[in-house]
Amino acid sequence: MSVELPIILVIEDDAAVQGLVEDTLSEGGFEPAIAASGEEAVTLLKGRTANYRALVTDIRLRGRMDGWEVARQAREINPQFPVVYMSGASAADWPAKGVPNSMMLEKPFAPAQLVTAVAQLLNTGAPPLAPSH
Amino acid sequence: MSVELPIILVIEDDAAVQGLVEDTLSEGGFEPAIAASGEEAVTLLKGRTANYRALVTDIRLRGRMDGWEVARQAREINPQFPVVYMSGASAADWPAKGVPNSMMLEKPFAPAQLVTAVAQLLNTGAPPLAPSH
Amino acid sequence: MSVELPIILVIEDDAAVQGLVEDTLSEGGFEPAIAASGEEAVTLLKGRTANYRALVTDIRLRGRMDGWEVARQAREINPQFPVVYMSGASAADWPAKGVPNSMMLEKPFAPAQLVTAVAQLLNTGAPPLAPSH
Amino acid sequence: MSVELPIILVIEDDAAVQGLVEDTLSEGGFEPAIAASGEEAVTLLKGRTANYRALVTDIRLRGRMDGWEVARQAREINPQFPVVYMSGASAADWPAKGVPNSMMLEKPFAPAQLVTAVAQLLNTGAPPLAPSH
Amino acid sequence: MSVELPIILVIEDDAAVQGLVEDTLSEGGFEPAIAASGEEAVTLLKGRTANYRALVTDIRLRGRMDGWEVARQAREINPQFPVVYMSGASAADWPAKGVPNSMMLEKPFAPAQLVTAVAQLLNTGAPPLAPSH
Amino acid sequence: MSVELPIILVIEDDAAVQGLVEDTLSEGGFEPAIAASGEEAVTLLKGRTANYRALVTDIRLRGRMDGWEVARQAREINPQFPVVYMSGASAADWPAKGVPNSMMLEKPFAPAQLVTAVAQLLNTGAPPLAPSH
Repeated sequence: MSVELPIILVIEDDAAVQGLVEDTLSEGGFEPAIAASGEEAVTLLKGRTANYRALVTDIRLRGRMDGWEVARQAREINPQFPVVYMSGASAADWPAKGVPNSMMLEKPFAPAQLVTAVAQLLNTGAPPLAPSH
Repeated sequence: MSVELPIILVIEDDAAVQGLVEDTLSEGGFEPAIAASGEEAVTLLKGRTANYRALVTDIRLRGRMDGWEVARQAREINPQFPVVYMSGASAADWPAKGVPNSMMLEKPFAPAQLVTAVAQLLNTGAPPLAPSH
Repeated sequence: MSVELPIILVIEDDAAVQGLVEDTLSEGGFEPAIAASGEEAVTLLKGRTANYRALVTDIRLRGRMDGWEVARQAREINPQFPVVYMSGASAADWPAKGVPNSMMLEKPFAPAQLVTAVAQLLNTGAPPLAPSH
Repeated sequence: MSVELPIILVIEDDAAVQGLVEDTLSEGGFEPAIAASGEEAVTLLKGRTANYRALVTDIRLRGRMDGWEVARQAREINPQFPVVYMSGASAADWPAKGVPNSMMLEKPFAPAQLVTAVAQLLNTGAPPLAPSH
Repeated sequence: MSVELPIILVIEDDAAVQGLVEDTLSEGGFEPAIAASGEEAVTLLKGRTANYRALVTDIRLRGRMDGWEVARQAREINPQFPVVYMSGASAADWPAKGVPNSMMLEKPFAPAQLVTAVAQLLNTGAPPLAPSH
Repeated sequence: MSVELPIILVIEDDAAVQGLVEDTLSEGGFEPAIAASGEEAVTLLKGRTANYRALVTDIRLRGRMDGWEVARQAREINPQFPVVYMSGASAADWPAKGVPNSMMLEKPFAPAQLVTAVAQLLNTGAPPLAPSH
């Protein structure tokens, strides 16, 4: 098909949640791209950042890197990169470990919350993604 | 199925609108819980506030309590409780009678407006729900 | 059916994009009304502004008026009128040519971004649409 | 001198705090107008609302009306009227009793906080003061 | 003294207001730089944009260019350039003629409003100055 | 005099900047409390967090801990603690290393920017300081 869609990079170990996230983003009109680990996600972002429009990541990941660290590295590559975290137990750590202008979805969350979070961060004129300098 | 969903407490007398609100929230991935009156809603919130994630309420209700009063009591139980009002004629009273950081949906509204309002208030990093102290 | 829906005025020359915008708004519960040109849109807004709740416009239009100019005229008719621009190449001009409190959707965008943008601008309590005086 | 200044209506029973508020607003370039009670403030606002640009009020007042009630009546007169509350013990009630888009200064507060709060609410382009309809 | 201060470009024809703006910015710790006309301001911004941190402009200027046009050209040079307009009669035109994420100070305004407006736009983490792409 | 003022914890190695920050906060009506290092600041916050209302910190500090780390630890002690960073060269790292809802003042900044940043973060109703759960 020839319609281009905004690609969203997703890191989620839990197969059930991953399927839900993929379906939800697809129904909202996004194209989810799954990374198997934080390390793979960072490699993908370094290679062709411009291809991805946002990061959606779980906190606990199977590699050495957790979701907090992936987000920090994504922001070093692109200071304005939109970030959405998904977590249960780790949601309370967002004020200390999250990056500025990111969003935290506390599990259990509704699919509509994920789509709204990504859309808000992508829409120009929405809350700021990065400092102005 | 065993997936846990965010429960939204809904107070709406009009059967047609109630059905629309239930369907809309369910399609967005929320679980609507209907209260028959403001009094019942407050009783439910006092009993197990932590079970509910937001209040969606009409202004004119059949008991003695209107939607403005239900929202005030919900905020006394939980100062950060997300509140969405729905109204036609009473929408103009929101600046005087609404609680801070609430949202007013003026009828007629589109189902997408309801889902977006609830999602915005639930998503961490969205506009503030309560003072910081 | 007799249910009244919020009418959204849409100006989009490209037939494929127009169809997508119409379908997306309809699925979100809005009623799209298509204008064939900027001139027609301004005429419709002057005649019965209160009927329309928001403007969704492409930048390059087939008449003499582009989307930037239509938005300015819409705001002269109603200073609080919600405006969503859609564009590819012209998105970078939004900081210089857009109106305050508008949103720019950069193509390619997901349908969910359009619905979220319109809903955010319509929901009372969302970011401001116009100065307070 | 002939320079016109924005007039801010102030209700504060405590003479020491009242003096501090007056001095602070004057140094910021505002003209404070003191009302002796909530009742007097509402009478002044009804008579010539357009003369006043914002309300700064304590919560506990010596008449029958408290600051929460004065703010509600001010918003019925002018739905977009900027409101700043000042309080010690009552600050925790703001999420339940405050009006939307108001600010609560918790005592003890610095004079700069009062000036910044009033300036933010007056500046066009700052957070919204009232619904858009 | 050797302390470097943020330079704010000011365009204001009225000598009395210009003096007030200069004094106010200086007392806030900014360094005002006066341009005699919109044309001169644009020339200064083109030559060494990085030297200036924000634009503060009246709407009615003595050259051919008004404040709305100067702001548009400043944003073409730097899409994130902070803009504060000052006006009496023209304040109502801001929703149609202002640039996104700018602020309008309606005359008469207090000096504290000017300082707060400039500081809010300069502080990272404050409301967005430009789209994220 | 016996008036209680909001205490702001300040960490700044450069004696000249420290003096400026102290004077600026004092003139705004705050009471600055200087910590000699990040380690000392964390000790003070652990001992009596409730005494301090906000943290203002440079990034490069003389101990082992930099300003990014102090802010993270402050947020672990109190998830809603207001944070203002001051920096020259490190300002560009804020999107990757700052905590959510903090502010970055890029040197050189005007004293008014510091006062406005602290006041905005302290004022209830201002941008959110922490997640809502």
